[in-house]
Amino acid sequence: MQYPRPLGRLIGELSKLPGIGTKTAQRLAFHILSLTDREAENLADAIQEAKHTMRYCSVCGNLTDQDPCAVCSDQTRDRTTICVVETPQDVMAMERVREYKGLYHVLNGVISPMEGIGPEDINLRQLILRLQQHPEVTEVILATNPNIEGEATAMYIARLLKPSGIKVTRLAHGLPVGGDLEYADEVTLLKAMEGRTAL
Amino acid sequence: MQYPRPLGRLIGELSKLPGIGTKTAQRLAFHILSLTDREAENLADAIQEAKHTMRYCSVCGNLTDQDPCAVCSDQTRDRTTICVVETPQDVMAMERVREYKGLYHVLNGVISPMEGIGPEDINLRQLILRLQQHPEVTEVILATNPNIEGEATAMYIARLLKPSGIKVTRLAHGLPVGGDLEYADEVTLLKAMEGRTAL
Ligand SMILES: [Zn+2]
Ligand SMILES: [Zn+2]
Repeated sequence: MQYPRPLGRLIGELSKLPGIGTKTAQRLAFHILSLTDREAENLADAIQEAKHTMRYCSVCGNLTDQDPCAVCSDQTRDRTTICVVETPQDVMAMERVREYKGLYHVLNGVISPMEGIGPEDINLRQLILRLQQHPEVTEVILATNPNIEGEATAMYIARLLKPSGIKVTRLAHGLPVGGDLEYADEVTLLKAMEGRTAL
Repeated sequence: MQYPRPLGRLIGELSKLPGIGTKTAQRLAFHILSLTDREAENLADAIQEAKHTMRYCSVCGNLTDQDPCAVCSDQTRDRTTICVVETPQDVMAMERVREYKGLYHVLNGVISPMEGIGPEDINLRQLILRLQQHPEVTEVILATNPNIEGEATAMYIARLLKPSGIKVTRLAHGLPVGGDLEYADEVTLLKAMEGRTAL
């Protein structure tokens, strides 16, 4: 006996999600069937709404439902510093530290020759344009992940910005090497931020 | 900084799912935003379709997209035996053994005085009606979970069916006590099936 088609389809769609194996997808699918119509509707609609309203900020590349994003629009933030991260999740991780008050630039990727991702495939050209248009920026903090690709991307950007004379710093190696910035705890991130070094 | 509202809503809805913590919900939400419009649409639509088309079989209580369900409609199955289980997931577990060829009855619950669930709150009255309407049934296999509530429910049903003279059996204790039938491996389930005992 196979699953009835709509149930099999739901299990199939759920198991495409990262980290969701078949057993978990089955459990989630049966749970969804046990929801009220309204609860299931809410879940489906939240997926659609997020997908339809979230976009990339035209200034910094962060995910946002308004353009420019809340950080770029916030006139109380320090406009002399830009923190460069790989993903929107990394922005959220930095914000949880509650220490950093500058702006962000989200690369939405990382240079990876192994995967054929070059500097032109990430949100880097926009960073250069942004720095040219905003001479008030005096420091760029490179907060890419402390792994091979993140380090290489930081080095590439540091070299690119060298002629501009802007101070370029890198988060200190308080971060566990090979780890993922998104999953760093607040204390580690704060220490890494405090110990950031000029490149 | 908080999440943009549509993203926060999606993370909130996802973290309502069983076994999905905040971190996982965040990861899933960002993944969903990275899907193509079509992929996200497929996921949302699979939820809606499953919720709208799946119902309980009016004969056996199993989840189905047709009524009666595929098992109840299958004229090649042995109509003299009914296997009573707690959930539709348990039907799928039994079917994976590929040994059992009879029919099912899904209680969609278990008697639990602790949680205020009595015999009238599960799909039990329909089982009695079904047995009255189908004198060809000669054996009822009680395959409720091998834990306190499952055992108590099996005992309750066995006592209820005693006057009918129908043979009532219980899956053998090959199943790990305190375990969940749904997660039993095929071999254990097969052994339990083979060693079933009369009550
Ligand atoms: Zn922005
Ligand atoms: Zn049925």
